[in-house]
Amino acid sequence: MSKTTTPKKPSKSKATQTPTVDLSLADVYGQVRVVIERVSPELDGGRFPIKAIPGDTIQVEADIFADGHDYVSARLLYRAPHEKHWHESPMHKLENDRWAGAFSVEQVGRYQYTLEAWVDHIGSWQHELDLKVRDGQRVTSELLAGATLAEGMAHRAGGSPTGDTAGNAHDQAELFRIAELFRNPDAYDQAVQVALGDAFHQLAEQYPERQHPARYSRELGVEVDRAKAGFSTWYCLFPRSASMTEGKHGTFRDVERLLPRIAGMGFDVLYLPPIHPIGTAHRKGKNNSVTCLPGEPGVPYGIGSPEGGHDAIHPELGTVEDFKHLIAIARNYDMEVAMDLAIQCSPDHPWATEHPEWFKKRPDGSIQYAENPPKKYQDIYPVWFETEDWRNLWIEMKRVLLLWASWGVRIVRVDNPHTKPFAFWEWVIAEVKKEFPDMIFLSEAFTRPKVMQQLAKRGFAHSYTYYTWRNSKTELMEYMTELTATNGQPDAMRYYFRPNFWPTTHDINPYILQSGHEPQFLIRYFLAATLSSNYGIYGPSFELMEHVPNAGKEEFLNSEKYEIKHWDWDRTNKLTYLITLTNRIRRENPALQQTNNLTFCRIDDDHIMAYLKTAGDNRLLTIVNMDAYNRRAGMVQVPIWQLGIDGNTTYVVHDLLTGARYNWKGEWNYVELDPYMLPMHLFRIEL
Amino acid sequence: MSKTTTPKKPSKSKATQTPTVDLSLADVYGQVRVVIERVSPELDGGRFPIKAIPGDTIQVEADIFADGHDYVSARLLYRAPHEKHWHESPMHKLENDRWAGAFSVEQVGRYQYTLEAWVDHIGSWQHELDLKVRDGQRVTSELLAGATLAEGMAHRAGGSPTGDTAGNAHDQAELFRIAELFRNPDAYDQAVQVALGDAFHQLAEQYPERQHPARYSRELGVEVDRAKAGFSTWYCLFPRSASMTEGKHGTFRDVERLLPRIAGMGFDVLYLPPIHPIGTAHRKGKNNSVTCLPGEPGVPYGIGSPEGGHDAIHPELGTVEDFKHLIAIARNYDMEVAMDLAIQCSPDHPWATEHPEWFKKRPDGSIQYAENPPKKYQDIYPVWFETEDWRNLWIEMKRVLLLWASWGVRIVRVDNPHTKPFAFWEWVIAEVKKEFPDMIFLSEAFTRPKVMQQLAKRGFAHSYTYYTWRNSKTELMEYMTELTATNGQPDAMRYYFRPNFWPTTHDINPYILQSGHEPQFLIRYFLAATLSSNYGIYGPSFELMEHVPNAGKEEFLNSEKYEIKHWDWDRTNKLTYLITLTNRIRRENPALQQTNNLTFCRIDDDHIMAYLKTAGDNRLLTIVNMDAYNRRAGMVQVPIWQLGIDGNTTYVVHDLLTGARYNWKGEWNYVELDPYMLPMHLFRIEL
Repeated sequence: MSKTTTPKKPSKSKATQTPTVDLSLADVYGQVRVVIERVSPELDGGRFPIKAIPGDTIQVEADIFADGHDYVSARLLYRAPHEKHWHESPMHKLENDRWAGAFSVEQVGRYQYTLEAWVDHIGSWQHELDLKVRDGQRVTSELLAGATLAEGMAHRAGGSPTGDTAGNAHDQAELFRIAELFRNPDAYDQAVQVALGDAFHQLAEQYPERQHPARYSRELGVEVDRAKAGFSTWYCLFPRSASMTEGKHGTFRDVERLLPRIAGMGFDVLYLPPIHPIGTAHRKGKNNSVTCLPGEPGVPYGIGSPEGGHDAIHPELGTVEDFKHLIAIARNYDMEVAMDLAIQCSPDHPWATEHPEWFKKRPDGSIQYAENPPKKYQDIYPVWFETEDWRNLWIEMKRVLLLWASWGVRIVRVDNPHTKPFAFWEWVIAEVKKEFPDMIFLSEAFTRPKVMQQLAKRGFAHSYTYYTWRNSKTELMEYMTELTATNGQPDAMRYYFRPNFWPTTHDINPYILQSGHEPQFLIRYFLAATLSSNYGIYGPSFELMEHVPNAGKEEFLNSEKYEIKHWDWDRTNKLTYLITLTNRIRRENPALQQTNNLTFCRIDDDHIMAYLKTAGDNRLLTIVNMDAYNRRAGMVQVPIWQLGIDGNTTYVVHDLLTGARYNWKGEWNYVELDPYMLPMHLFRIEL
Repeated sequence: MSKTTTPKKPSKSKATQTPTVDLSLADVYGQVRVVIERVSPELDGGRFPIKAIPGDTIQVEADIFADGHDYVSARLLYRAPHEKHWHESPMHKLENDRWAGAFSVEQVGRYQYTLEAWVDHIGSWQHELDLKVRDGQRVTSELLAGATLAEGMAHRAGGSPTGDTAGNAHDQAELFRIAELFRNPDAYDQAVQVALGDAFHQLAEQYPERQHPARYSRELGVEVDRAKAGFSTWYCLFPRSASMTEGKHGTFRDVERLLPRIAGMGFDVLYLPPIHPIGTAHRKGKNNSVTCLPGEPGVPYGIGSPEGGHDAIHPELGTVEDFKHLIAIARNYDMEVAMDLAIQCSPDHPWATEHPEWFKKRPDGSIQYAENPPKKYQDIYPVWFETEDWRNLWIEMKRVLLLWASWGVRIVRVDNPHTKPFAFWEWVIAEVKKEFPDMIFLSEAFTRPKVMQQLAKRGFAHSYTYYTWRNSKTELMEYMTELTATNGQPDAMRYYFRPNFWPTTHDINPYILQSGHEPQFLIRYFLAATLSSNYGIYGPSFELMEHVPNAGKEEFLNSEKYEIKHWDWDRTNKLTYLITLTNRIRRENPALQQTNNLTFCRIDDDHIMAYLKTAGDNRLLTIVNMDAYNRRAGMVQVPIWQLGIDGNTTYVVHDLLTGARYNWKGEWNYVELDPYMLPMHLFRIEL
C-alpha cells in the first residue's frame, strides 16, 4: 500500500556562505529600507518546525525597523499545508522596535510563516501633516502630495490586475473623491480634516502603499499534529498478563475484556509493549536472569523468532486479525492502541539471517550482541545503523511502520530512539506522516537534555521527561519553567517539545515510590495528571502501588518484563478512585488540556505547590501538599489581577475533587492539606 | 584609480525553505550521526560577520552531540582571507554537550570559521576496552578490532594521497607495529597496556578515523580591521578656527601648527568636520539663525557651492594639495586625519543641478528641503535614497570615498548614517574596503538601539554610543554590561559593536556638564578614556570646559558650527594635564587598549565605581568618585581570586596618576577620593 521512495545518496549540499556584500541579496536591493531580524519562534534558523495542534494560535515576534524616521508597516504571512499563496495578518509594534502578530492553525500538516514589512509612506505623511498643522503651517503643498497618495490607494482599491485580491468599487470612488478634495484650494479646511481623520487612516491600512517591501529571508514551519498530540491519557499494560486465569498467557481477547474498565477510568490510549514473537536464543529468565527455565516467556523486547520479526504478532497473543479486532473494539470506547517500536533483534530474528549486513560483526565474523560495558546482553543484537546498506534498513523500518498503520495503529511509542541516528527519525517519521498525517510518535529517551530536545525537533510529537525524578517543589517549578516558559528564547522547549509525564514505567520504579506509601502515589500521580496535558501510567502495577525494588535499583522486583503477571483487575482503591475522578475532570476542563498555560502561584510553604491553568473562562487552581507525611497549611496568592477579579469581590473556589465550595476574597487565602485525607485541592475558580 | 562596479538589479533571492525531510541535506545523510547546533558567536544565522583586530583570539562554542553512547570528536575550522583550505583547531567538551574551541586572527580582512565533528570510534573503543579490562573480561576479540583501527591510523599517518597533509613515516611504522602487537596472542598483556596507554590515545588524536563527519551548515565570518579600530584616541577641531589671529579664517597650515600640541597630548586621530565648500542659499547665521549677516561663514554641513561638492575642498581652508600636506605632516606625529561624510547638500551643491533626480520633489516640482516637522531646514537638501537612480547615487558616493582615500584618508566619521539605507552602507563600506582594507568608518548615529546595532553589523568599525547620557554608577554599569558581556547571546554586542566614547561633541553639550564644574569634566573625561579603548573629545571646546548652553537645550551657545571661534591654543589646565597623563598611560598599558576586558568590582558606595581591566600581566584597577561635589570613601573588593593573589599576600597598587604606591592585602581595601583634589585612582596592581 505504500510507495517506497529509495533514499538516494545526496549531493553534498553547499554550506551557506557568510554573505560578503552581494547585490543579489534581496535585502541589499537598494530601495528596500526595512530590516526584519530576531524572529521568534524560530528553531535553529528555521531548520526545524515548531509544533501545534488545530485551533492553536501562533504568536510571532520580530525586530522590525527602517532607516530614518518614517513609519513602518509589517504583516505576518502564513499558509496552510499545500497552499501556494500567503494569507496575511497585521503586526503591531510593541516597544524598542519589537513587533508582534499571530495566526491560527486549523488543519493537520505543515504550515509555513514568514514576515513582510515596508516603509509606510502614507502613515508618515499623515504624521508629518499633523505636526505641521499643529504648528499652524499652511499645508497646501503637502495636501497635493497626499492627493497622489490617495490616488495610489484608489487604484489598489480597484483590486489587483491578477484578481488575487478583489476590488472594492465603493472605497475606490471614495478615495478618488478624497484626492479631488486634497487638490481643491477652496476646501482647504475640510481637506485637512479628512487627511488627519481616522477614516482616511483606516483606508491607508487597507490599501497600503507597499513600496519595496522587505521579506524575511526564511520561511518557517509549524508542524500541526491532530488534537490527541496535545491532550492524551495513556495506560500501559502487557497483554500477556491480561488473562483472568492465573498462569494462563493473556491474549488480545483478554485485553478486550479489560477495555470497559480502563476506558471507565478515563484513559484514551492503550499502550502495549512489543507484541512480536520473542526469541529463544539466550532468552532471559525471571528478574533478567541469564538462565531461563523451561516455559519462561522471555522478554518482549527480545524481538524476533522463526515465527517472524517486527512485522509479525506473537502467536500466544493472537493473530493479526485478533489485534485488528482489539483496535476496533478499543475505538468503540474512544481508545486508541499504541504499539512499541524497539529497533533491536533477538538472535532468532529473521533479519539476522536475511540481512546480516545490518549488524555489527566481531573480528571472528559473528554478530556483535548488545553491550553496555561491563554488562553484556547476549539475547539482543543491536541494529547497526552505520551499515553501508543503511538505505535498505531505513526502507524496511518504514515498511514495518506502514504495515502497523495498515492494521489501524496511529500511535507509536519508540523505545530508546536516542541510540539510533537523528537523521533516520527525521526521515522515517516524515515519510510515514506523508501517508498517515495523524501518526503520533512518542520518544522514550531518558538521556541528556540536548539529545532529548533534538529528537523532538526531528519529529517526535511526544517525549518522555525527567518528571519521574523531579520530586521537590523547587525541582518541579524549575523543570516546568524550562518546559513551558520562553525566557525570550526563539527556540524555547515549549515550541517543539511536548512532555508526556509518567510517575513510573515498566522500566522505572523511582526511589520516591519504593516506600509504597499511598499518599506519595496519590501526589506523584496527581502532579503528572494536572501539570501535563499528556501523561500515562504503567497501569496495573501503578494502580496497585507496586513498589518493591530489585536489589536497591530503580527497577521492579519480579518485573513484568521477564515474566507473566496475574493482576487483580477488579480491585479498586483510593488511587484508582483519584485517577478516575481526575481523568473525568481533565476531560471536562479545557484548562487541563494544555501544558504551556501554566502559572505558578506564591505560597509560603516549601512543600505546598500551587499553580493556575486557564483556558478562556475555565480557570483551575491546583494546590498540592508534596509532603506525603505531614499536614501542611499556608497562604496562597491567587493572581486575581490576571483573572480580572478586584480585591474586594468575593469569588468561589470549587474543589472539583471533593465538591466543597469556599468563598475567597483578595489575593491571599488560606489552605490546609492533610496527606492522609487528600493531599490536594483542584479548585475551579467560579465568578 | 577605482574600477567602478555597477550595482545591477538583483535576481530576487529565494527564501530558505523550512526543510521538510530532504535526503540531499548533508546532515540527513544516513551515516552522519553528529549534530552541531547553537554556534556562538553567530550574528543572525551567519548573515553578518563578527569583528576583531589582528592578534585577537576568537572563542567559539557550540552544542555538539551524537546519538548513542559513542565518544565524539570536534574541530574548529577556520581560514584567513582568500585562503581555500581550512586550518583546524581542536575543540574540547565543556558540560551538557557544549564544546569550545579557539583560533587567532593575524591579517586584516575577512576570516571564516565553521565546525566539523564525528563519532570517535577509536576513543569509544578504548573506553569500552578499559571498562571490560577493569571488569576482568578477556578482550582478545576487542584487541583484534583495535588492530584494524590501528592500521587505519597507520594509513592516515602516511599522509593524504593529495599530499595536503604530509606523512609521518615514524608514526606509521609505530602504528603498524601496534596493530601487529594487538594481533599477537602471546603479547596479550602488553597489547592491553598499549591499547589503554596515553601514547596510543595521542596517536588517535593525531590520526582520527573521521568517518562520516558532520559539517556545520554555515560558514561564519570575522571581519578583521587594523589595530587602530581597536585602540584610538580622537581629537575633533574645526580647521577654520585654527588661526592664531582672532577674526582670521583658519587654514590647513594653521592646523599643522597645532599638531605638535595635539600629538603631545597623546591623540592619534585628528577628526575634522566637513571641509567642503559651503553653500550660500539660505545660509544659516550665528546660533543657527535663519538670517545670515554678510561675512558669516555658514555651516560646514551645508555642503556644496559653485566651487564644488563632496569632492572639493573649501578654498578658504586651502587646496587639495594643502590638505594632503596636512595628512603627511600629521603622519610624522603618528596622527591620522579623519574626514566627515555628511550625505546632504546645500541648494548650491552641483548635484542639485546635475542630478535633480537624487532629490525628492515637492508637488510644485521644486526640491524638498530638509524638515523635522515642525522644524524646517531650507539650507539643506537631503539626498533621496529611494530614487529610481539609486545605483548611480551609490556609485557616486563610492567615487567620493575612493577620492578621499586617494588623498590619504583612512578614517571616515559618518554623519547621521541612520537616515540612509542600511543596504547602502553595507555595500559602499565593503566596496571601499576592497581597495582600502585599512579604511575605518565611525557611525555617528544617536538613535534607537537596534538601529545603531544594525549599522555596526553592516560594516561600521566604530559607533558613537549613549555614553554621553549615562551618568550614574548604575546607568554606566548596566550600559557597559550591555556593550561588553555576552550573557550567553550568540549575537551579543561585544562581537560586532565597537563603542567610541565622547563626553561632548560639537553637537552635544550634555546637561551634566553645563555647570562647568571642573571635577565633573575630569570625571566624564576619565570614564570615557578608561572604560573604552576608543574615545574622543571635541578638542578645544572640551579642554576649556565650554559649557554655556543654548536656551536650555543640550547645545552650545555660540556653537562653532555656525561661526568661527578663536581658541587660546596655549592654555593648559588641570583637565589638559589629566588628558595628557591618561593618554600616556593608555599607550603604556595594554589593559586600557581593549574594551571587552572589563570587570566591575564591588564597592559599598553608590557613587564610587571600580573596575578591573587586565591584559596578560598588565592589571589596572580604576576607581572613580562619580560625585563631583563630595569626598567619598569606601571599601573596594579586589577580585584577587581572578588575579591569582592569595588572601595573605601583600600586593602593591601603584597609582599611575599620582605615582603613589599602597600596600594592600586581601580582597577588601579602603579608598577615599576627593573630587576637588583628584576624583580617581588608576592603580596598576604590581605583584
